[in-house]
Amino acid sequence: MQQVVTFGEIMMRLSPPQHLRLGQATSLDVTYGGGDANVAAALAYMGVPAAHVSCFPEHELGQAAAGHFRRLGVDLRHVQYQPGRLGLYFLEVGASLRSSRIVYDRADSAFANLDPAAFNWDEILKDAGWLHWTGITPAISAAAAQATADAIAAARRLGITVSADVNYRRNLWQYGQKAQDVMPPLVAGCDLVVCTEGDADDLFGIKVAEESDHPFVDMSEQLMQRFPQIKRVIATRRKTQSASHERIRGMLYQEGRYYQTPYFDINPVVDRIGGGDSFISGFIYGSQTYDTPEQALAFATAASALKHTIAGDINLVTPAEVEPIMLGNTSGRLLR
Amino acid sequence: MQQVVTFGEIMMRLSPPQHLRLGQATSLDVTYGGGDANVAAALAYMGVPAAHVSCFPEHELGQAAAGHFRRLGVDLRHVQYQPGRLGLYFLEVGASLRSSRIVYDRADSAFANLDPAAFNWDEILKDAGWLHWTGITPAISAAAAQATADAIAAARRLGITVSADVNYRRNLWQYGQKAQDVMPPLVAGCDLVVCTEGDADDLFGIKVAEESDHPFVDMSEQLMQRFPQIKRVIATRRKTQSASHERIRGMLYQEGRYYQTPYFDINPVVDRIGGGDSFISGFIYGSQTYDTPEQALAFATAASALKHTIAGDINLVTPAEVEPIMLGNTSGRLLR
Amino acid sequence: MQQVVTFGEIMMRLSPPQHLRLGQATSLDVTYGGGDANVAAALAYMGVPAAHVSCFPEHELGQAAAGHFRRLGVDLRHVQYQPGRLGLYFLEVGASLRSSRIVYDRADSAFANLDPAAFNWDEILKDAGWLHWTGITPAISAAAAQATADAIAAARRLGITVSADVNYRRNLWQYGQKAQDVMPPLVAGCDLVVCTEGDADDLFGIKVAEESDHPFVDMSEQLMQRFPQIKRVIATRRKTQSASHERIRGMLYQEGRYYQTPYFDINPVVDRIGGGDSFISGFIYGSQTYDTPEQALAFATAASALKHTIAGDINLVTPAEVEPIMLGNTSGRLLR
Amino acid sequence: MQQVVTFGEIMMRLSPPQHLRLGQATSLDVTYGGGDANVAAALAYMGVPAAHVSCFPEHELGQAAAGHFRRLGVDLRHVQYQPGRLGLYFLEVGASLRSSRIVYDRADSAFANLDPAAFNWDEILKDAGWLHWTGITPAISAAAAQATADAIAAARRLGITVSADVNYRRNLWQYGQKAQDVMPPLVAGCDLVVCTEGDADDLFGIKVAEESDHPFVDMSEQLMQRFPQIKRVIATRRKTQSASHERIRGMLYQEGRYYQTPYFDINPVVDRIGGGDSFISGFIYGSQTYDTPEQALAFATAASALKHTIAGDINLVTPAEVEPIMLGNTSGRLLR
Amino acid sequence: MQQVVTFGEIMMRLSPPQHLRLGQATSLDVTYGGGDANVAAALAYMGVPAAHVSCFPEHELGQAAAGHFRRLGVDLRHVQYQPGRLGLYFLEVGASLRSSRIVYDRADSAFANLDPAAFNWDEILKDAGWLHWTGITPAISAAAAQATADAIAAARRLGITVSADVNYRRNLWQYGQKAQDVMPPLVAGCDLVVCTEGDADDLFGIKVAEESDHPFVDMSEQLMQRFPQIKRVIATRRKTQSASHERIRGMLYQEGRYYQTPYFDINPVVDRIGGGDSFISGFIYGSQTYDTPEQALAFATAASALKHTIAGDINLVTPAEVEPIMLGNTSGRLLR
Amino acid sequence: MQQVVTFGEIMMRLSPPQHLRLGQATSLDVTYGGGDANVAAALAYMGVPAAHVSCFPEHELGQAAAGHFRRLGVDLRHVQYQPGRLGLYFLEVGASLRSSRIVYDRADSAFANLDPAAFNWDEILKDAGWLHWTGITPAISAAAAQATADAIAAARRLGITVSADVNYRRNLWQYGQKAQDVMPPLVAGCDLVVCTEGDADDLFGIKVAEESDHPFVDMSEQLMQRFPQIKRVIATRRKTQSASHERIRGMLYQEGRYYQTPYFDINPVVDRIGGGDSFISGFIYGSQTYDTPEQALAFATAASALKHTIAGDINLVTPAEVEPIMLGNTSGRLLR
Repeated sequence: MQQVVTFGEIMMRLSPPQHLRLGQATSLDVTYGGGDANVAAALAYMGVPAAHVSCFPEHELGQAAAGHFRRLGVDLRHVQYQPGRLGLYFLEVGASLRSSRIVYDRADSAFANLDPAAFNWDEILKDAGWLHWTGITPAISAAAAQATADAIAAARRLGITVSADVNYRRNLWQYGQKAQDVMPPLVAGCDLVVCTEGDADDLFGIKVAEESDHPFVDMSEQLMQRFPQIKRVIATRRKTQSASHERIRGMLYQEGRYYQTPYFDINPVVDRIGGGDSFISGFIYGSQTYDTPEQALAFATAASALKHTIAGDINLVTPAEVEPIMLGNTSGRLLR
Repeated sequence: MQQVVTFGEIMMRLSPPQHLRLGQATSLDVTYGGGDANVAAALAYMGVPAAHVSCFPEHELGQAAAGHFRRLGVDLRHVQYQPGRLGLYFLEVGASLRSSRIVYDRADSAFANLDPAAFNWDEILKDAGWLHWTGITPAISAAAAQATADAIAAARRLGITVSADVNYRRNLWQYGQKAQDVMPPLVAGCDLVVCTEGDADDLFGIKVAEESDHPFVDMSEQLMQRFPQIKRVIATRRKTQSASHERIRGMLYQEGRYYQTPYFDINPVVDRIGGGDSFISGFIYGSQTYDTPEQALAFATAASALKHTIAGDINLVTPAEVEPIMLGNTSGRLLR
Repeated sequence: MQQVVTFGEIMMRLSPPQHLRLGQATSLDVTYGGGDANVAAALAYMGVPAAHVSCFPEHELGQAAAGHFRRLGVDLRHVQYQPGRLGLYFLEVGASLRSSRIVYDRADSAFANLDPAAFNWDEILKDAGWLHWTGITPAISAAAAQATADAIAAARRLGITVSADVNYRRNLWQYGQKAQDVMPPLVAGCDLVVCTEGDADDLFGIKVAEESDHPFVDMSEQLMQRFPQIKRVIATRRKTQSASHERIRGMLYQEGRYYQTPYFDINPVVDRIGGGDSFISGFIYGSQTYDTPEQALAFATAASALKHTIAGDINLVTPAEVEPIMLGNTSGRLLR
Repeated sequence: MQQVVTFGEIMMRLSPPQHLRLGQATSLDVTYGGGDANVAAALAYMGVPAAHVSCFPEHELGQAAAGHFRRLGVDLRHVQYQPGRLGLYFLEVGASLRSSRIVYDRADSAFANLDPAAFNWDEILKDAGWLHWTGITPAISAAAAQATADAIAAARRLGITVSADVNYRRNLWQYGQKAQDVMPPLVAGCDLVVCTEGDADDLFGIKVAEESDHPFVDMSEQLMQRFPQIKRVIATRRKTQSASHERIRGMLYQEGRYYQTPYFDINPVVDRIGGGDSFISGFIYGSQTYDTPEQALAFATAASALKHTIAGDINLVTPAEVEPIMLGNTSGRLLR
Repeated sequence: MQQVVTFGEIMMRLSPPQHLRLGQATSLDVTYGGGDANVAAALAYMGVPAAHVSCFPEHELGQAAAGHFRRLGVDLRHVQYQPGRLGLYFLEVGASLRSSRIVYDRADSAFANLDPAAFNWDEILKDAGWLHWTGITPAISAAAAQATADAIAAARRLGITVSADVNYRRNLWQYGQKAQDVMPPLVAGCDLVVCTEGDADDLFGIKVAEESDHPFVDMSEQLMQRFPQIKRVIATRRKTQSASHERIRGMLYQEGRYYQTPYFDINPVVDRIGGGDSFISGFIYGSQTYDTPEQALAFATAASALKHTIAGDINLVTPAEVEPIMLGNTSGRLLR
Repeated sequence: MQQVVTFGEIMMRLSPPQHLRLGQATSLDVTYGGGDANVAAALAYMGVPAAHVSCFPEHELGQAAAGHFRRLGVDLRHVQYQPGRLGLYFLEVGASLRSSRIVYDRADSAFANLDPAAFNWDEILKDAGWLHWTGITPAISAAAAQATADAIAAARRLGITVSADVNYRRNLWQYGQKAQDVMPPLVAGCDLVVCTEGDADDLFGIKVAEESDHPFVDMSEQLMQRFPQIKRVIATRRKTQSASHERIRGMLYQEGRYYQTPYFDINPVVDRIGGGDSFISGFIYGSQTYDTPEQALAFATAASALKHTIAGDINLVTPAEVEPIMLGNTSGRLLR
């Protein structure tokens, strides 16, 4: 499989152990993650060549974040180092009817202050077959948005597949531009997007009739009309039972056809952060490995379900582990 | 809201991590709690001025127990320090069909040996609007029972609302007096009690006809007849599925009307100790905040349900966290 | 109750805490276990005199393994010490639809290299009333198989009850002999066996008609015909819902009658390793304590269900804890 | 003793356990501290009424920081809550010839953005007898410097003793004003300062002749000439043997006389953060408790030496623990 | 070597990890120990048959304490189980010039309430060659003192060597009798005692002239005159440098000759609890293994020095580990 | 600097936390290391391109070991994966006069069974400037010795510098060949060796006259005569004070001149494993960075001294951290 390149910020994640609240904790578990980097890392763990492009602070924390992804086999050779801080987020892990909560502390990071001109995207992407980005990245700063645009432009020039998880987070857009202005030209360069009906409405004003029987299909068709480069739209549908019990299904619209998987039941949830990132990484893997859209979608959804049982942001599972789940063998029997 | 004052013993709680049995543990998690103090602490966490009156040993462990509650904003200025030991309890946390178990080691504590004459209750309660105590306190020693009686008498003099969780624990009554003799005059001074049908039978000989359609109502009516000061009786009904899965509903009888909430489902339970304390603290908060008894009861029950997801004896939740649960939004979605 | 003697290897078990994958762990929880030794330890915890015969390496790890079982009251006086290594296994604890996985690292252990001639079984068994072994032991090496045969022969000479968990593990048989040749003469010396339909087919070629209404009965009858010393066949039937949710029932065939228990539901599972060992130890205890086969089977199955809530390989539960479960009281209420 | 009031930022401190480097850590120990707040907390632990004035973010981390100091008995009633982040610092604990290292991440905190006008210093200080601040506070922002000036002015109006630890940290002064301009008018309002020869040179251009036999005395005299309100100058002299082995002595210049203690040897050092804060808190306590400057200085230095054996930023020691050290009994014998 | 039997209380020890103070700890490390039981356990670890006689509470904590010593190979078959609590002690581990501190919580334990008549000492000691007790045991209760007297009497009848660590702890004697009355008849039955000049003065009024060149010799001679059964007196001399740095030497007076070892330097001290117990257990081992008093004393002192590097109350070292230290090889080189 | 390539086995290291003995541990800290791989990793951490060649088992533990080194930036692209186990070692960390101890469990590893023919050394070394190996590698198996010989031969062909740490470990040579036969032809291909007088005697029969004033010089001269390719001989001299206190100096013989550094004092030692590996990696870095042999040796020795303060096998220090130590600034002052 050809190399997949991702671009975006990596943050330190700090979370109290054992469902403690932040105010109870005398130690915090540390890991690192980012919506795009998680995709690269999950693919590398599956054996796919993967590189991540980012900007880290020069100090020890930047090195620690880099090491976390290098350990998993992600190529970081194109990472930029700048003065500044490492973005952080504090995660309180809920249980049952108590929600998990995130306190972000990511303003003014080295990534936000990256130098877009310093990335030579034609060079970076020269061995790549796929570029992936998320809607979080252009939300961070004008510089980050510019670099995203540059990357997409280079990918189009080089004929590389481009995917995006549009992932609209209202609170993130703080630097003076509106998502509704910044995102459309970026999404216009994509072949594949992860997008829910809510995202489509918020970002592109795409409305689905309330009485629609197939809101995802309706949304996808409008999205493809608006952005003709888009060939496939995917998303997961969550039926969140509680903070400890999740049910997800995968959805795909492609070439005029709608596909969906059955619901996968995850109980208990070990860690739901990165569930979406594992879906798209699973789809990238699956769409290049299996013959049918059904299989690609089933692999993606099974991979995402498995992610909910893995601690940390990143889906540390092999294709051999996803495949039985994808085929419905979810009994979790002991393997000796 | 006016200050709430509670009175009772605080113990160190020692429990093996991770569902280990006591004999397996090479370390024990430490926290502090007490049935009445937990009410003060939960109220303080909700922003209600709260003070706790107790008696601690003078040594490091008494200081540690005090610090635990001071951290949460409980006013401890009226605490007495005496020679003696800090009461302890060892908690083994069960799972599924294995029960949690408590080994008490609380005999002869500094609290048991408190000096009732040294508490100036008129002074202690001068800014308070509410006094709360539990049936555990008068069970500990004659001195503790005397201090409870003094506190209630002062509260009545000052026109303060008095509530009690009657909480009958047969094994605790070891100092030569019977609960059936000690409790009635104390309960007679209360405006609100937490009391189950079992408690009412054990303590006051109140029997409910087996064929009763509304045993809680029948019991409450008899209780109010016997103790005319009581205006409201509340309790939770538990349908314990397993040590990891609890279902609770709230019940209230007031002014001739019966109220109940739907069952709240808690799965998994993180920590069920203090579930009752969080119910009464929730009711104290709710009854002074909301307009209707239904709302007060719903808040109390939702607060208690949430408590089951919080480690330790104390309900560390804000009203903003309880309110969605109270309205039935128990999906535990990630909050960013 | 008379002493129960078990024979087999004890391994160090290393597992990442908190559902981490092996590659994520910076520390590994350590315990010790073995299919036969777990039976002795569970019985000792229940107050039954129990001895375990094994072979340990002479170094610190052998001492540590021995100490683990001595702590639980198992008599280890007949253990042999030889040069060599301690067998290990790495256990990754799954959750929900992610399987638990074991990586064995047990080749060439001191146990595999034991000296069968050095065990004086007539001496070892002189105070015993029961000998138990598992199909894992003769799978390890020719020496281990020889010692198993010697033990069974001595037990028969002394008129001691012999039980076996036939427990066929294909991957273990590496030393050049086939289970199908080694096991039959050993099983022929047993009064009681734990055996599933799958084991009976794999080891003894016993087939059950696909359309059979009672495959366990059919298998048991064939097994008893083939090995007339066998008087009772037992097994558990698992309906594994997920790595976190197990349902088990017990089955017994004896004197032409079939017995089964209802399903016990275990959710969440704390640790499912040793579930089978706790079933047979429960049956050994129950069959000597209760009057009826129904009770013995119910005790065994309840004990095994409880084991799933206990960390480590060994069932650390007392008869007083098993009995309520056995009677269907599985609500896991808090015991003060 | 009259209440001591301190003013300044409180940060979360995150440090790898067990001398690990930041890049090795999978969890970070969490505590909270600040140069001025540490003084209030140490005094409260010694039984002195102490209040701290600060500005916290409104979210969970601000609450957690507040709880940490409330637990120790510090009155936080005058704390301001503002939007923004909680300042952080990452501490890598060295050993032997490897230095401890701090990575600060404190820019743009809620404290930096405090509203100076919202503090009513006359009200805040109305029951106080002592105000203490450090040179870190005016370095953070113009608002923080303004509030410091306001506090000092109010203290002078009310006739309260004012002390400062001038503590010049070059890297901190980032908001456009120079320490050399901001600090002199603030120091001019102090009765007592902690100041080394280096600080005096950097901040006030006070030079000591290289050949001076008594550089601390020379510096102190010049400082008092320049700022006639200053009556006492104190400092510690460190002979740092290694990251694990510290030697400190105390120095005091007062009424024309110089005092010094012998060196206290600390080996191993458990935690050297807050060593200076414990010196000034010890001096505040000692100068009001003992009759002579020698005793006050000895108490302060012994308290600081003890701090090096206490984990965290704050000196959790009682006067009864400091006094034997102050008298030279440093043998650390077991106390039963 | 013949079996050694010890008698006394076993307590649970709870200590904060990592030099934390009790008020800082959110977990406490758990172990078990007792002055006499530690001797039995250290001897068992060295391969000497050892039994301990005690009285435990029947509940889980008594079982846990028993398991701790059984793991180490101590024979507990003569232990009594009674209602009551397990004695506890809280240990705060100091560092450098900060002392370690113990908060005892051992009053009213099951051991204090033991039934002396229930021990059949002739049976208990029938295979033993040595009985050891400490002055802590008769300090606990009249019942414990009686059992000690019974044990000594039986040992004398059976011609068994009796040793005691007289270990006077003023605070322990609370049950109405004086150590000065209780101890002499018990010590009169001993062949060997651990006794310092201070103990001899406190317990027996034995004074040593201040100008004595050999206070230990003078004391020993007086002690032997007073108690003619005593043939050997031993003790360690400590030069405590700090809580982290200890220096000890061994002293022996026997047959009119005085022996002493050089000082052993222990820096850092890992755990100094049980240092005296490891000295006497080392002497019991050494005196029966080596030909000369010098060697026995060197072994005992080296064993005690090594104990200071072992966590917990018990000296987990083999003779092969003690011997190089005994010969002065204290370089601690890595052993592969 | 040109790439450095190393070759050898990587093991999992398991050690009890906090100076516990193996039998006390309920968890073991996990890290990974190997004498040659540690050199590559330390160089990578210093910014030198470094690759390691090895053979791992295919399963999770091989992946985990690989990830550990990949995190640090070591290029593992030429690693071979084979069936088999991962070598382990258990490390008990001593303190003061108690030695650290290693229990090896490395027999029959995947590395021992590597396929020498599968390494294309001309390809592997094509961008390299330096090859480093240790005497441990040819001790493991004939295959490992063959691969070492092949690597050296290729390096010589390509004109690359070759270094070796001869590191004679008697116990390791178990596969039927003698170190004295295998090592000379390998050492003959080296430009630089780490070799002590003891190693030279054991491996090559090189004797130094007892009365020699300069035994290291004498040995080095004989070694160079015997192996004319060797241009430099280096070693450290240890004065081990205790398991917690080490003193080391560096020695170098080159072009007829002898160089040595002063002793560096390390107290306390955090982790002494890998001290030698950090010396040679420091020398590789230093000899290519500094102008003089004195500087190279000082850097190497300072790097090794620093290693003793870093947990794990690998020297995680930057040149900026080594340089002050190298210049004698060993005070370990706090760096903000």
